[in-house]
Amino acid sequence: MTVKPPQERPRGFSSGMSKEEKRQHYAGKGGPKRAKLAKLGGGEGLWLYGVHAVNAALKNPQRTCRRLVLTQDRLSGLDPALVARAKKVETTDREGIDRLLPPGSVHQGLALAVDPLPDLDFDDLKRAAFIKERAVFMMLDQVTDPQNVGAVLRSAAAFGALGLIVQDRFAPPESGALAKAASGGLESVPLARVVNLSKALEELKSEGFVAIGLEATAERTLPELAPMPPKLVLVLGSEGEGMRQKQRETCDVLARLPMVSEGPVDSLNVSNAAAIALYEAGRG
Amino acid sequence: MTVKPPQERPRGFSSGMSKEEKRQHYAGKGGPKRAKLAKLGGGEGLWLYGVHAVNAALKNPQRTCRRLVLTQDRLSGLDPALVARAKKVETTDREGIDRLLPPGSVHQGLALAVDPLPDLDFDDLKRAAFIKERAVFMMLDQVTDPQNVGAVLRSAAAFGALGLIVQDRFAPPESGALAKAASGGLESVPLARVVNLSKALEELKSEGFVAIGLEATAERTLPELAPMPPKLVLVLGSEGEGMRQKQRETCDVLARLPMVSEGPVDSLNVSNAAAIALYEAGRG
Repeated sequence: MTVKPPQERPRGFSSGMSKEEKRQHYAGKGGPKRAKLAKLGGGEGLWLYGVHAVNAALKNPQRTCRRLVLTQDRLSGLDPALVARAKKVETTDREGIDRLLPPGSVHQGLALAVDPLPDLDFDDLKRAAFIKERAVFMMLDQVTDPQNVGAVLRSAAAFGALGLIVQDRFAPPESGALAKAASGGLESVPLARVVNLSKALEELKSEGFVAIGLEATAERTLPELAPMPPKLVLVLGSEGEGMRQKQRETCDVLARLPMVSEGPVDSLNVSNAAAIALYEAGRG
Repeated sequence: MTVKPPQERPRGFSSGMSKEEKRQHYAGKGGPKRAKLAKLGGGEGLWLYGVHAVNAALKNPQRTCRRLVLTQDRLSGLDPALVARAKKVETTDREGIDRLLPPGSVHQGLALAVDPLPDLDFDDLKRAAFIKERAVFMMLDQVTDPQNVGAVLRSAAAFGALGLIVQDRFAPPESGALAKAASGGLESVPLARVVNLSKALEELKSEGFVAIGLEATAERTLPELAPMPPKLVLVLGSEGEGMRQKQRETCDVLARLPMVSEGPVDSLNVSNAAAIALYEAGRG
């Protein structure tokens, strides 16, 4: 095994860089859009919308809630202690909320301007896993659709996964659409944005995690791997492309979902595949 | 058991009514929108779009393909025999395709005007199941989002389910968005629109099917029911509401997915729950 000189090694988790280093690293690279997002809406930050997403954000002490805009009906139905979490509260009609959001946003009568969540320290996440007997992480390689990432967060919350790991450069930023699809999961499942996925995998493996990559062409099926190891990281690639080579090689084992061979549809929506993997991992 | 006089009994499957009876039955009820849809787009029928949806439609002999509009790039990549299935073929740029479709449609450079699929005879579907040793149907109660119904069709195709059963009045019509989410599944998984879901369940039960309803509050979990019966109909309700009382009562057994109790997110996206149920059913 050749050891590359340090200066050529890929950068580590996002926690390995200071904010200033990250800003420089991503300048002009289409990297994290948080800073840009925070400036949208006239300095009001990011708009979340929909019952579950807004409720979960109001309940999340980590979340700075700036402006809650909702219908009178929704206001009457909300716990006043939750409403008080927003620095500013306004009632309006549904059309008034429509005007604050991208066209077609299904807001259900409420919207909340928030600050993006604080950057997550991946080392903290690893420490949280360290003290647990069972821990499941989900890793997504180049899944860029915010609705898919949101739906995976929702399933990760439902099945008790400890966190979702994505690559900073190829993952969608926090957004209303992502939060809506996550249905509250964005507030409860840590979303770790790392610079290098295979390095993240190596670090987890060195702490006793087994990395299972889902791949349509794998020889073994996921249920054949049962019982699942107590510490597990599940890796999924994008639809069509799958995982990239580097991640594929870093996994301990590749497995496929037992689908109809030669069937008319040979792959699942990525959030559906993730839900099945999280369900299977939860069976132990 | 009291037997209701015939005139009070709920109407049977859609196959039980002639086209003219159906037209009258649904007049002004917001029922099947096929006739209306077929008139959209200047009599060009329904627009399908996206690589998988259009390819699958061209490959489906049941599908009448009227007008294929695509970029030169996409045309070069398509099998000429498939292209010949469309009565009319035009190349244009992406903006030209944008103008044919609802705003925001991710068409990937191709769109196809088709006729809706012919009405399905549910009795044929039952006959197809009758001769099989293993058969799985999925039934959706009041799932109205076309993206969810499409995603369920995709999973049903991937896991070899024999058909999807929905209630005609409370299910979305065929649409480009549904077909796109189904990623080809709309062409291969029979979508049966019935008038009365619990009657459909009773008929399947009388032919040896076991009806398992997914419900978040059920005592037993789905994996506890393994091994699954060889003939199975899985019933899912809408998010939030769940199944309606009548369907719940008609199921042989209710089961829940083993999610984190008291977790921050207590339900899955309906297409994710369906994917897990279909996966579990496929394990036998």
